[in-house]
Amino acid sequence: MNLGKVVGTVVATRKETSMDGLKLMLVRYVDIEGKETGSHVVAADAVGAGPEEMVLVASGSSARQTLATDKRPVDAVIMAIVDDWSIGEEIKYKK
Amino acid sequence: MNLGKVVGTVVATRKETSMDGLKLMLVRYVDIEGKETGSHVVAADAVGAGPEEMVLVASGSSARQTLATDKRPVDAVIMAIVDDWSIGEEIKYKK
Amino acid sequence: MNLGKVVGTVVATRKETSMDGLKLMLVRYVDIEGKETGSHVVAADAVGAGPEEMVLVASGSSARQTLATDKRPVDAVIMAIVDDWSIGEEIKYKK
Amino acid sequence: MNLGKVVGTVVATRKETSMDGLKLMLVRYVDIEGKETGSHVVAADAVGAGPEEMVLVASGSSARQTLATDKRPVDAVIMAIVDDWSIGEEIKYKK
Amino acid sequence: MNLGKVVGTVVATRKETSMDGLKLMLVRYVDIEGKETGSHVVAADAVGAGPEEMVLVASGSSARQTLATDKRPVDAVIMAIVDDWSIGEEIKYKK
Repeated sequence: MNLGKVVGTVVATRKETSMDGLKLMLVRYVDIEGKETGSHVVAADAVGAGPEEMVLVASGSSARQTLATDKRPVDAVIMAIVDDWSIGEEIKYKK
Repeated sequence: MNLGKVVGTVVATRKETSMDGLKLMLVRYVDIEGKETGSHVVAADAVGAGPEEMVLVASGSSARQTLATDKRPVDAVIMAIVDDWSIGEEIKYKK
Repeated sequence: MNLGKVVGTVVATRKETSMDGLKLMLVRYVDIEGKETGSHVVAADAVGAGPEEMVLVASGSSARQTLATDKRPVDAVIMAIVDDWSIGEEIKYKK
Repeated sequence: MNLGKVVGTVVATRKETSMDGLKLMLVRYVDIEGKETGSHVVAADAVGAGPEEMVLVASGSSARQTLATDKRPVDAVIMAIVDDWSIGEEIKYKK
Repeated sequence: MNLGKVVGTVVATRKETSMDGLKLMLVRYVDIEGKETGSHVVAADAVGAGPEEMVLVASGSSARQTLATDKRPVDAVIMAIVDDWSIGEEIKYKK
């Protein structure tokens, strides 16, 4: 999984019908220090993530292993909201 | 999923027979500001996208989770046409 | 899928037995203008592609969705031979 | 699989329920000499890896082929703890 | 698939039990001229490859489509030993 920050939303009315009801979030990936890396992804939201929250994104077929995304054409999903992460004893991010 | 802009089409007569009837689009990926990044993909069209439209592309096995692409050798699909996206309160793209 | 040009062949006698009879081609990826990008892949051939032909390569699990590659350890397949592609009204490649 | 070093942990309370009980580790990838490459991944732990241990990470759908990760939205798993590796006769890393 | 050269081995005693008996090889990827590119992968060996041999590596879910790797958390497999490859009429590598 990759660490990222929710920075926005994407709206799409015309889409594969199985996508109906799925919320699409713009997520910017962050590095181990929590800094944005410059790359991003549009991910389906399976956990009710809000703006500016740090999240985990699962990609590929694993993105379909949530109740919200099962059998849908989704290759990236927010499957967790991050409380904190540490390197060794040092807390690098805390909500 | 990744944001991209439909810039062209690809024609292929000789192909795996399951590909018959699928429309193949040239899509240029764009960044979060809507600017083309220089990388591209050939994606099957599942939603009737037209030239210059901003779209979402799903990749990998997820590209086969549409009615149009099921069980076909397709690793990228246009599964939504984007109306708009925002970062925070700022609209970055609007159709 | 990615656009590429068939530039050569790979011969391997000792291999997973399910690979018997599959033709392995060296494909160089090309950009949207048809210029080689410097990266390549070894792809199984599902459509009888010949040297110098422009082709489409599907990657990942989608590479196994052809009659020739089903259930084989193949992560890239030539699933179409390209006739032409255009950007807007401009033909960028024609066979 | 990729070689990496466990450098930290990620805590997430709000998550897809199937993630409950899975330990999430921050892994920094290393090169063939054992030096950190600067890229990282958040991987589920299937083998009880501890801090500073060298591990193998499997990605994509293969990350779900462990007892701990089966059918979960996990795209990276620690599936082995490395004892040592060699290039030719030279041991490059030993626990 | 990607061309690579077997340069070493990886030993891991503590691992997902389904990995028992699988040989793990360090493979350095090579370019179309046979030169090492600097990137590497740890691949399971399905064909009895030896040191310094040029091989083909299949990645992703396709890495599980061999008798040796079926249903295991393996995302890269050596599924062929290369005899030779050519670009046009020119042999670039011969065993």
